[in-house]
Amino acid sequence: MISSREDAHLREELVSSGEVLQGSFLKVLRDSVVLPDGKAATREYVVHPGAVMVIPLLEGSDAPTRVVLERQYRYPVQRVMIEFPAGKLDSGETTLECAQRELFEETGYRAGQWAKAGVIHPVIAYSTEFIEVWFARDLVPGPSQLDSGEFLEVFDAPAVELITACLEGQVTDAKTVAAALWLQHYMAGTWSPAWHTAV
Amino acid sequence: MISSREDAHLREELVSSGEVLQGSFLKVLRDSVVLPDGKAATREYVVHPGAVMVIPLLEGSDAPTRVVLERQYRYPVQRVMIEFPAGKLDSGETTLECAQRELFEETGYRAGQWAKAGVIHPVIAYSTEFIEVWFARDLVPGPSQLDSGEFLEVFDAPAVELITACLEGQVTDAKTVAAALWLQHYMAGTWSPAWHTAV
Repeated sequence: MISSREDAHLREELVSSGEVLQGSFLKVLRDSVVLPDGKAATREYVVHPGAVMVIPLLEGSDAPTRVVLERQYRYPVQRVMIEFPAGKLDSGETTLECAQRELFEETGYRAGQWAKAGVIHPVIAYSTEFIEVWFARDLVPGPSQLDSGEFLEVFDAPAVELITACLEGQVTDAKTVAAALWLQHYMAGTWSPAWHTAV
Repeated sequence: MISSREDAHLREELVSSGEVLQGSFLKVLRDSVVLPDGKAATREYVVHPGAVMVIPLLEGSDAPTRVVLERQYRYPVQRVMIEFPAGKLDSGETTLECAQRELFEETGYRAGQWAKAGVIHPVIAYSTEFIEVWFARDLVPGPSQLDSGEFLEVFDAPAVELITACLEGQVTDAKTVAAALWLQHYMAGTWSPAWHTAV
C-alpha cells in the first residue's frame, strides 16, 4: 500500500532550466515543465548538495542512553535551535565521511561504530536537499574544531528527554524531530540499524 | 537541560536587509549581520508565509487506526512522495482555518475534531518556514477540490504501516516522518493532544 513508485500520471517533465539566483549561499533554478495534463508550469527551487545528520549515542552499561546535541542560533528563524550535529556534503565526500567530519568538527567526538538509519527530504516543495541520517556510538571525546564564524554549544541529554522535548515543543527542528522517531524505536528495540566499525 | 532560551552569546544581529530574488514562487533575502564575536557575515534565506500539515485519523471502533495520505510528484526531488496533507497559509488565515481548508481541498474530508500537535521548522539553515501540525478525526468524506494544475492521489493506510514505512525508508518527506513521532505516541497512549470540536 505504501509505495512511492514513479507513476507516469503524476510526473512533471522538464522543458528548460535557467539559473535565477547564484547568491553567496543559495543557488536557485527556475524550470519550465509540462504537467501530467500537458499544460505548462514553472518550478523554482534551491539546488543543494545534500547533507548528513548524526545521532551520537552515549551508551553506558548501567546508565540511561544519552545523546549529543547542539544549541545554535539559526538566523532565518531568529532563534536558538536544538539540533543533532549536521552539515552539507563537501565535493567528492561520501556521506559517511561527511558524517564523521561533521561530528568531529562540531563536537570533537570520534565514533567507533556507525550505522545508517535512512534519508529524509526536508523541503520537497522548493529544494533538492536530502539529509542522510547516521547513528554513531562508542564515542571518544575531544576538542571541537569549529570554523571561524561558527558558534554553537555542544551538550548531552537523556535520549528519552529529547523525545519528550520533541513531543512537547521545546525542539522544533524538523530533522531532529524526524531523527527522534528512529531513536524512539532504537531505544525500544523495535528497530535496529546495521552497525559497522569505523575505519 | 533541553531548553532553547535566546542566549545573547549565540545571537546574530541584523545590520541591513535586501531582496535578491522575487521569483514567481520564491522570495530570497540577503541580510548583513553581526556575529557574536563582532565580525560581519551574510545570511541568505527564503521568506515563507508558514504552512500547516494535517494528520487525518480514520479511527474505527473495532479496526486498527488508519491515516489519510497523499502521493504527489515533487519536482525538486524528482519523485513521487508520500505525505500528509499540507499547504501554505493564505493571508489573514488562522492555522486551523488553513488546516481545515487544505484537508478539504486536497482530500475532500471534513473533520469533526481538531487538535494541535506542535510546530516544526523544516529548513532552519535557509528558510523562515514553519509548519504547524494538526491532528484531525471524526472524518466525513467528500470529493476533493484540487486547484487546476494540482495533481495528487489520496489514499489511506494503517497508522502502524506508515510508521514502519518511515523507519524503513519508503517515506522520506521530513514533515511526514516528524509527524510519525506524534502519531506513534498518540497510538501508544503516551502522549495526547487537546481535542476541540470543529466550528
